[in-house]
Amino acid sequence: MPSISEKGRRMPASPIRKLVPYAEAAKKRGVEVIHLNIGQPDIKTPKIALDAVKNNTIEVLAYSMTEGSEAYRNKIAVYYAKNDIHVSADDIIVTTGGSEALSFAMGTLMDKDDEIIIPEPFYANYNGFATAMGINVVPIESKLENNFALPPIANFEKLITPKTKAVLICNPGNPTGYLYSQEEIKQLAELVKKHDLFLIADEVYREFTYDGRQHYSILQEKELEEYAIIVDSVSKRYSMCGARIGCLVSKNQNVIKTALKFAQARLSPPTLAQIASEAALDTPQSYFDDVIEEYMSRRDILVSELQKLDGVKVAVPQGAFYCVVELPIKDADEFAQWMLEKFEMEGSTVMVAPAAGFYATPGLGENQIRIAYVLEKEKLIKAVFLLGEALKQYLSQ
Amino acid sequence: MPSISEKGRRMPASPIRKLVPYAEAAKKRGVEVIHLNIGQPDIKTPKIALDAVKNNTIEVLAYSMTEGSEAYRNKIAVYYAKNDIHVSADDIIVTTGGSEALSFAMGTLMDKDDEIIIPEPFYANYNGFATAMGINVVPIESKLENNFALPPIANFEKLITPKTKAVLICNPGNPTGYLYSQEEIKQLAELVKKHDLFLIADEVYREFTYDGRQHYSILQEKELEEYAIIVDSVSKRYSMCGARIGCLVSKNQNVIKTALKFAQARLSPPTLAQIASEAALDTPQSYFDDVIEEYMSRRDILVSELQKLDGVKVAVPQGAFYCVVELPIKDADEFAQWMLEKFEMEGSTVMVAPAAGFYATPGLGENQIRIAYVLEKEKLIKAVFLLGEALKQYLSQ
Repeated sequence: MPSISEKGRRMPASPIRKLVPYAEAAKKRGVEVIHLNIGQPDIKTPKIALDAVKNNTIEVLAYSMTEGSEAYRNKIAVYYAKNDIHVSADDIIVTTGGSEALSFAMGTLMDKDDEIIIPEPFYANYNGFATAMGINVVPIESKLENNFALPPIANFEKLITPKTKAVLICNPGNPTGYLYSQEEIKQLAELVKKHDLFLIADEVYREFTYDGRQHYSILQEKELEEYAIIVDSVSKRYSMCGARIGCLVSKNQNVIKTALKFAQARLSPPTLAQIASEAALDTPQSYFDDVIEEYMSRRDILVSELQKLDGVKVAVPQGAFYCVVELPIKDADEFAQWMLEKFEMEGSTVMVAPAAGFYATPGLGENQIRIAYVLEKEKLIKAVFLLGEALKQYLSQ
Repeated sequence: MPSISEKGRRMPASPIRKLVPYAEAAKKRGVEVIHLNIGQPDIKTPKIALDAVKNNTIEVLAYSMTEGSEAYRNKIAVYYAKNDIHVSADDIIVTTGGSEALSFAMGTLMDKDDEIIIPEPFYANYNGFATAMGINVVPIESKLENNFALPPIANFEKLITPKTKAVLICNPGNPTGYLYSQEEIKQLAELVKKHDLFLIADEVYREFTYDGRQHYSILQEKELEEYAIIVDSVSKRYSMCGARIGCLVSKNQNVIKTALKFAQARLSPPTLAQIASEAALDTPQSYFDDVIEEYMSRRDILVSELQKLDGVKVAVPQGAFYCVVELPIKDADEFAQWMLEKFEMEGSTVMVAPAAGFYATPGLGENQIRIAYVLEKEKLIKAVFLLGEALKQYLSQ
């Protein structure tokens, strides 16, 4: 029998996937599983986006342009201008989710065995794409103690080799919720210019910033134009993760021209979802005001409830809707499984994402979990209560 | 300024893309350009599929399952059973177009510098995906003289090295229109079993077979179960190229388990398009009967009109809706550009796809073009007439 690839064997499985059978078994036993592990918002998709799809008059559901429809790209450029990011439709390639934008960026910039520096903890799938491409992720540790702020630039410098091609950040961060300051972005700008590296920023949570903080994009740094690549997506912005529409943005025409060749191979992004995404751009600001207020109050409740628990440390998120939490245990993986297998209270338990899967350095984050606060407040309160009770039981075993 | 990847530089640009500016310029001059170059069918998408999207009651456009919704995969399995392909929902991963299925297959089976044998001419994007993955395409020539039938197995044997991991066929073929016989599939089955290779078949044109011929799938070969991977798509079947829904099918659970890890990295296939695709499976047989009759009569007219032209040779297609044509010229690339730049008759000209882009061996196919017969018959007749007149003018220069 022929064997699968070395790369295929090395591809990381989703850290949450291992827990899924235990969650399913719990549900079969009649236990309610409260999911703190999923980044799928419960917020409604803007009606304007869903209606556009319902009212379409398509007779032949044809390919769109490889780079996305011109009308849509023009409207995206207007959206960016409102965010002080000045690009034209030609600087944008519409992709199948932010995932594909990242994959195009990696292919455009990096060959096998090249290195990309990423502050950890980071979105676990960065590792998947890197493995799929044979690229090495070089992690640089950011710390819960200071809310996962940018690591000192001197630490980056130590990791740069001739193989280093890019630095990748997620801003605001999944799983950290950290929002990089303008000063931190400027430090990164100096770094990549000095060492001739690309700077890729996953800015899919751009809108979700709290406490009056402003997002500062890498493309607001004028001198970064040739170095900066934004990975973006409609998934979280409009609560339409299932659309699978994102984009890659760069003022570097060499990057766009090359990424377009990768895009041509897969023909085009999905047509129906582009209709929804184009319409979504007309979502009124009030929608975001409401959503941000909702997330912020969820965060406040989540953090204050977590801080009541003995031995629990929380990095207070300033954006996105995730939160990394340190627990007074050794192995969050084992604990997460235990909660699904052995723990229940009043017919309920909790599923969390063990944070080790968000670190590339072995051993880091083993006592941490990621919580996505995409649930209603009462559910969050109940979930944290259950988490606290579970911790007590688990520790007294 | 940082530089792009070696791989990015090597990525092939679409062979047609070079001609696009000339086509646009012709249109600006007021010339009608008849497109024989595009595989986008003009056939209407089944109403049942479009209506399902219009009638959806989604409030949160959420991620679907990574492997595609269970309901949809169950229905796909039923569709396959009707085609004498016996698989379960667990043998299927729903993908973003056939493109992604191929990309997952390549990642699952092959590492950098591994080799995949593909009969040429072949769908140009196979090359794009191979380049993106650092895989080497090893072409094996099939010939217009015998309608691009399977090359002798002895020729395959000569090309097999320790790096060879798979054979890839497109059946029926784009661009050849050739339909492999049961006997040819059995020969390939023997070959891959003997040498422990995977056999990947792109069967997206399965329904489109003419003159009463039956498609024979690689998964109808029982002994191939551990070796066979089908790449499939709804794009051509239901004239819904813009959906971007396909699937990867294999009875080899190691392949499925590994491909699923690649799928997890990109989260899920598009949700709206899955709704359309699931509904499309209820398309009545009469739709296909009509479409096949339409394509067959288009083929008949196209081939008989082409055969009237001096010095033109046609490989008679038995399936799909493409046709490779040899012209009495040296360089079809130059001729295609000339038709757009310099030729017009009664206000019209023709755009064709030069066939060299479908060959991997330099020098092959330079006097050939690919025609997609996805236009109404009158248009096809007019287009071939224009092609004939253009040839006369071009040759008399």
